[in-house]
Amino acid sequence: MSNDVNSSQKAVWLFREGDKSLRDLLGGKGANLCEMTNIGLPVPPGFTITTATCIEYYNQGRKFPAGLMDEVKVALADVEKQIGKKFGDPKNPLLFSVRSGAKFSMPGMMDTVLNLGLNDETLHGLIEATGDARFAYDSYRRFLMMFSDITLKADYPGLSKEGFEHLLTEHKAKLGKEQDTDLTAEDWKALCETYKNFFREQTGGKEFPNDPMEQLRTAIEAVFRSWNNERAIVYRVKEKIDHNIGTAVNVQSMVFGNMGNDCGTGVAFTRNAANGDNHIYGEFLMNAQGEDVVAGVRTPMEIAELEKQNPAIYKEFVEIAHKLEDHYRDMQDIEFTIEKGKLFILQCRSGKRTGTAALKIAVDMVNENRISKDEAVLRVPPEGLEQALHPRLKGTAKAKRIAKGLNAGPGGAVGKAIFSSEKAAELGKGGKGEAVILVSQETTPDDIKGMLAAQGVLTSRGGRTSHAALVARQFGIPTVCGCSELKLDGHNASSFTAGGVTINEGDWITIDGTEGIVYQGALEVETAAMTSDFTTLMGWADSVRKLGVRANADTPEQAAEALALGATGIGLCRTEHMFLDEARLPIVRDMILAEDDEAARQKALDQLLPIQTEDFVGIFRAMKGNPVTIRLIDPPLHEFLPNQVELATEVAVLHAEGKNDQAKETLLRKVNDLHEQNPMLGLRGCRLSIVFPGIVEMQVGAIIGAAAQLIKEGVEVHPEIMIPLVGHINELTHVKEDLEKVAKSTQEKFGVQVPYSFGTMIEVPRAALTATEIAKEASFFSFGTNDLTQMTFGMSRDDAGSFLPVYIREEIYKEDPTVSIDQTGVGKLMQICVDDAKRARPDIKLGICGEHGGDPDSVKFCHKLGLNYVSCSPKRVPVARLAAAQAALDENASEAHK
Amino acid sequence: MSNDVNSSQKAVWLFREGDKSLRDLLGGKGANLCEMTNIGLPVPPGFTITTATCIEYYNQGRKFPAGLMDEVKVALADVEKQIGKKFGDPKNPLLFSVRSGAKFSMPGMMDTVLNLGLNDETLHGLIEATGDARFAYDSYRRFLMMFSDITLKADYPGLSKEGFEHLLTEHKAKLGKEQDTDLTAEDWKALCETYKNFFREQTGGKEFPNDPMEQLRTAIEAVFRSWNNERAIVYRVKEKIDHNIGTAVNVQSMVFGNMGNDCGTGVAFTRNAANGDNHIYGEFLMNAQGEDVVAGVRTPMEIAELEKQNPAIYKEFVEIAHKLEDHYRDMQDIEFTIEKGKLFILQCRSGKRTGTAALKIAVDMVNENRISKDEAVLRVPPEGLEQALHPRLKGTAKAKRIAKGLNAGPGGAVGKAIFSSEKAAELGKGGKGEAVILVSQETTPDDIKGMLAAQGVLTSRGGRTSHAALVARQFGIPTVCGCSELKLDGHNASSFTAGGVTINEGDWITIDGTEGIVYQGALEVETAAMTSDFTTLMGWADSVRKLGVRANADTPEQAAEALALGATGIGLCRTEHMFLDEARLPIVRDMILAEDDEAARQKALDQLLPIQTEDFVGIFRAMKGNPVTIRLIDPPLHEFLPNQVELATEVAVLHAEGKNDQAKETLLRKVNDLHEQNPMLGLRGCRLSIVFPGIVEMQVGAIIGAAAQLIKEGVEVHPEIMIPLVGHINELTHVKEDLEKVAKSTQEKFGVQVPYSFGTMIEVPRAALTATEIAKEASFFSFGTNDLTQMTFGMSRDDAGSFLPVYIREEIYKEDPTVSIDQTGVGKLMQICVDDAKRARPDIKLGICGEHGGDPDSVKFCHKLGLNYVSCSPKRVPVARLAAAQAALDENASEAHK
Repeated sequence: MSNDVNSSQKAVWLFREGDKSLRDLLGGKGANLCEMTNIGLPVPPGFTITTATCIEYYNQGRKFPAGLMDEVKVALADVEKQIGKKFGDPKNPLLFSVRSGAKFSMPGMMDTVLNLGLNDETLHGLIEATGDARFAYDSYRRFLMMFSDITLKADYPGLSKEGFEHLLTEHKAKLGKEQDTDLTAEDWKALCETYKNFFREQTGGKEFPNDPMEQLRTAIEAVFRSWNNERAIVYRVKEKIDHNIGTAVNVQSMVFGNMGNDCGTGVAFTRNAANGDNHIYGEFLMNAQGEDVVAGVRTPMEIAELEKQNPAIYKEFVEIAHKLEDHYRDMQDIEFTIEKGKLFILQCRSGKRTGTAALKIAVDMVNENRISKDEAVLRVPPEGLEQALHPRLKGTAKAKRIAKGLNAGPGGAVGKAIFSSEKAAELGKGGKGEAVILVSQETTPDDIKGMLAAQGVLTSRGGRTSHAALVARQFGIPTVCGCSELKLDGHNASSFTAGGVTINEGDWITIDGTEGIVYQGALEVETAAMTSDFTTLMGWADSVRKLGVRANADTPEQAAEALALGATGIGLCRTEHMFLDEARLPIVRDMILAEDDEAARQKALDQLLPIQTEDFVGIFRAMKGNPVTIRLIDPPLHEFLPNQVELATEVAVLHAEGKNDQAKETLLRKVNDLHEQNPMLGLRGCRLSIVFPGIVEMQVGAIIGAAAQLIKEGVEVHPEIMIPLVGHINELTHVKEDLEKVAKSTQEKFGVQVPYSFGTMIEVPRAALTATEIAKEASFFSFGTNDLTQMTFGMSRDDAGSFLPVYIREEIYKEDPTVSIDQTGVGKLMQICVDDAKRARPDIKLGICGEHGGDPDSVKFCHKLGLNYVSCSPKRVPVARLAAAQAALDENASEAHK
Repeated sequence: MSNDVNSSQKAVWLFREGDKSLRDLLGGKGANLCEMTNIGLPVPPGFTITTATCIEYYNQGRKFPAGLMDEVKVALADVEKQIGKKFGDPKNPLLFSVRSGAKFSMPGMMDTVLNLGLNDETLHGLIEATGDARFAYDSYRRFLMMFSDITLKADYPGLSKEGFEHLLTEHKAKLGKEQDTDLTAEDWKALCETYKNFFREQTGGKEFPNDPMEQLRTAIEAVFRSWNNERAIVYRVKEKIDHNIGTAVNVQSMVFGNMGNDCGTGVAFTRNAANGDNHIYGEFLMNAQGEDVVAGVRTPMEIAELEKQNPAIYKEFVEIAHKLEDHYRDMQDIEFTIEKGKLFILQCRSGKRTGTAALKIAVDMVNENRISKDEAVLRVPPEGLEQALHPRLKGTAKAKRIAKGLNAGPGGAVGKAIFSSEKAAELGKGGKGEAVILVSQETTPDDIKGMLAAQGVLTSRGGRTSHAALVARQFGIPTVCGCSELKLDGHNASSFTAGGVTINEGDWITIDGTEGIVYQGALEVETAAMTSDFTTLMGWADSVRKLGVRANADTPEQAAEALALGATGIGLCRTEHMFLDEARLPIVRDMILAEDDEAARQKALDQLLPIQTEDFVGIFRAMKGNPVTIRLIDPPLHEFLPNQVELATEVAVLHAEGKNDQAKETLLRKVNDLHEQNPMLGLRGCRLSIVFPGIVEMQVGAIIGAAAQLIKEGVEVHPEIMIPLVGHINELTHVKEDLEKVAKSTQEKFGVQVPYSFGTMIEVPRAALTATEIAKEASFFSFGTNDLTQMTFGMSRDDAGSFLPVYIREEIYKEDPTVSIDQTGVGKLMQICVDDAKRARPDIKLGICGEHGGDPDSVKFCHKLGLNYVSCSPKRVPVARLAAAQAALDENASEAHK
């Protein structure tokens, strides 16, 4: 172990001796206790044993450093003097809590002992001092259990919390009582005896340690040891906390909120953690301990009630709260206890808050001159912004939760469960206008109409980048995917079971696409609006970020939404969705079925040309001169045809019935012909354009034609034509050469010069590896990190549902690589590509258009890589803008540190 | 253009002035003509214009360097003097051939003009000198056409060979004659007039150039220009020949083999090019020109016949042949012409030969002390060795060729076309013993039995690494894959059409898996044997190679074959094939269908354990102490279940008929459940082992158990356990940790220590990218370049048939990356991996077990990468051994050059 803290420093710090700058040495909790003490807040006195001491403890082979307990005794004496009680005093005993406290918060990972200092003698002192025997015995039995469990279980496994709890259960059964609150002082007293006997049994006749100093020494060592318990190690691995920094130990005098009606305890935030309003916000309980609030045994009261019950205490608390917020320059989460009418502050820390609250608080604090605009930008978690923009569910706590899947498309949605796209389209938006949730095993492009008609989508298969999830985010449809708990029987299901509940077609369900949860019944949904705080903060973010933010948008409506949310271009316009429109699909199918009949194929393409041209006119117009990157057709052709199994089954049944449907037979033959083992790695992207150039020629004709029309009208247009799935420079050269001819002839036809460019998606690993060559032929690269991740991992987006949940649970993947860019592997490939591309073509424009473009960590990574822009679904544009700003500020800070 | 040849050197070299060391300057043909002249062979005199002159021609903007024609005239005069004829002499004219000749052979790519110097005057001289008017007019009309086509077509497109040929056809029609041989001297004379008129028409009234010097100048320039004709450029791109080295021009006096019965022409090899026998081998025709031999108008005679017809000439030729072979120290291919009883040598070069011949010639030449053993090793093309070991077809030239596909599994095979596996198994090997060829769209693991029963396999889909191809090479089954010319109707076809022929079930067909050709009917097949030459050459190869060579083998029989062919270990033993055995598949299906019934699953695994143990006992025993790398189960479980479409159809039809088959319903449910969109990127490899650890636990129990049994018997065993599809270090750690326990307990059970190790396949791009981490947990890496290539290219082995042929045809891929490692992309990834792995773990063992392990170029690349071994199918082991030796020798040579 090593640490830069000088271990020859003193080991024990009284709270008045430290301050908040000493987090490394005193841990987060210790440093805050010192700070609060020093600014004059009523903190129960105590002291902190340094993290350096813990390190030394381990370095010396789990032995206390020499003189440690002497220092502890000196500090203890000081505390006794401050309080006027003595540790171990049989009359009016001083009791301590002993808690861990590392530099970084590790909630619940390490050990805590309360009520330390109790024994048969001091117990009586406590009864005398408080006049409350029931409280005293209750405290004692808790201490007997907690101390045994934490300090001795390693040597005597029987001394576990469970062992003691079991005795309590037996005890209550014997007494015929159900609730802890039913037990009297005598009952608790008897239990204490039972506990002590149990201790003797389990330890082979030893007595529970009565000496308070021995108790203290043992508890301190137990906290040191808990630094390396299994769950703490696992937590540090996960949170990437250094294993060598050790924990401090906080020894603080106990105060009690449960010693009568002039006592109480509570937790409060200096501002509203839900909406950010600048009002004290919290809960309290009179005559109670902290754990009673947490356990929900009694319902706590709103903090405002305290003003009525005890205006003086309330006033004092409010003053302290303001003082703390002023001092820390951030909204604080404060734990307090009232003991016999006296207020104590036990802990303070920056308060957790919702996205909406974070936004409001950050902007308010700038307006209050507490923090700078840059600080405000850094304070709002980007994920929170999205939450602030999506519809939210209310009343989830009491709702019947029946399953959990992947949070694929954020937002809450309520509707009747409907099991087929057709029916969803018939009943939902654009149909009868009912609220429906489309439920299916998975979705295909044929389901788009049903998905768009639904309030939300729920699938039993597929990951966060499955078709359903992609469409969901694209169109802002709340979606839960890969919900394997759903028992759904095949394609023709009309019900599912989950969480012991059967949901039939038409039953109401609610899904939370932000959290991935499915509820039975209809919950209430509240919609969010863009606030002026939002606009203000985004403005500050935009002024510092270097990374451009574009949107993935396929329709004029989405383009308009993207612009409204601050996108400065379209980074990915997918043209295949345009083919799935009800009116167009038959033409597309005609084209596919034309096979070698060149005239029939051309006829279909000629029909599509004006339609596609109109698509692009709409999008270009909506984008008002901002650049639009259009990806030429990408998916395999069979995605435009019916499902093979369903069609084969249908035809076979017709045969069995002696019927014959020539059109279906022909269709089936084509479906079989186009069937692929691994369509993701098959005939798609530029491969399709090389084998069947007609489709992309038509598309480029439409793009250039649309641009030319608008340019004639005086509208500025910047189309960037993106050729997908390139893995070899020759693919790009081949396709580009062909399409340049189309671009040229279309411009001649309109007599207009269009400022277009050609580029490619980097989604095949080989493209990234050979960027030096490919960059020479591409004006821009856009990382298609969905496919790039899938190919680099050898993992299909649609099939990962069978193992990805296990991988996440077993922590094989720390993070789902389809959610946040895998910086080690995929990121290395991207780095190679960026370096080579810039060397080969310094002016190349680099972007990303995979779903990762809206993930804050990925956006920050893209900033580091030196990309020009990220592109994400319109709803995530603000998230990306904020993350980009934070990345720029982080970079400035780390450069300032150099 | 640039070149290191000094262009201030003289431009024109008489044949007596140069030698074979001047290939750069004089081109291959020119240098050889000089060499032959200088060793005293009867070469028709002439001169060579240097490649430097060609370069200068281009550098000066397509202008002749100053003084070139003066130099030409000097050389010409010399040649006239040597021969005693004059260029343009109306009495006894000297005629020339003008031919290109670059440093590297580019057969047919550039232009040649024969009979140059003819005009209306010299024509009469030729008639006088030869006394053969028909010959003279025929030569003249050929010259008129050839000269026009080659030198003037660029300016006058009408002057094409086709235009002239059309006139000849009309002429013959008018005369009522069919064959060229039917035309008399008068007929040819008339045609010459027609040609000259045609020339006038096409050029707007110009006369055909009559001046011989103008003809020569024009022809020289035409050859220079032909260096940059389209087909020459394409050829150089393909063969990676520098575009800047230019061509030489060879101007050689014409000799005629068609001037009477004391004239003739022929081509001969100094040894038998088919089997390597040390005898002159070739053909000749008396009173004929070279092109008559080529055109097959008359059937040439064996060279031995020449001895009878003209023993003096034959003796002279044999002496020359021996002299040339001695001189060049290699088997020579010699073109000769006899003019009026005098022998002329027109060209010599190293002769092309079959694999068998290459082997014999190389070994013989070492025995004859002509070349060293290292030279012998370098002289045999590794591909040829395989040819020497596979059965070969005879009489292919006359057979009816009906389709061409991919040469997926080498060797020839003859059998009745059978369209289902079941029927093939019933009729073929192990069944009724008939010879069958299994014909299908594609194959799945369910087809293995049918494939093994067949002589050969023919599929209409799938590439060289499709399932069919992999199994084919693995089991040495001649196979043609991806034969898209086959019109085969769905899964239930009972006939196919190809090349205008319909083949019904039971019709005989022949396939050539070495060339990828399908023939109608039954051809003869000859089997090859390992000769002592083979063994000798392999011994020399083994003594120089550094790379180890292992085999991919799944059965004791294959292991034995691999050892016999020189493998020193198994680099890939695939365990899943073992599950497909008829007796085992039901148990495997029970295991899969067990789902959550842990007891049922364990029962099936318990049944499999002793069977798998026996598998490994057999393989370990066969390998006699050599290391055996065993890959744990890799494919997705649905590969062990029936085809989804077929089963769904069957069940639907049963339903339609009001029937019900519970077992089939259950099976279908499971098939649907396990169905994957992209199985290659789904639940397979280590993912399967993480989700369902039981299977690999059983396998490791079997491996260690088998090893333990044999060790007890005193047999040496070195199992290397390979965990497939690892992409993240945690996958490897997780699986290894579990399996180490099994290994430990199995060793304890047997009371034996087994020297096993764990390693992983590098087949997922991410594994290669994160080798630094993964190497720490792996004793060995084996590049699974099949999958690595597919994932790096984003290209599925089973689906590439729809675009790969187009890619190869359009030269988008210069080479099929599934055949030879793509060194630019996949190779870069491998290089990153090797560098990082060796840095992280210097003693790591590195190999390759993809099909590329048997491809010579890939083997050489693996040598350069610094791998420890390659592993390939047993039949390709000799190929790999030889390629590895050549790589080592090449490296020595290039180091010696430094």
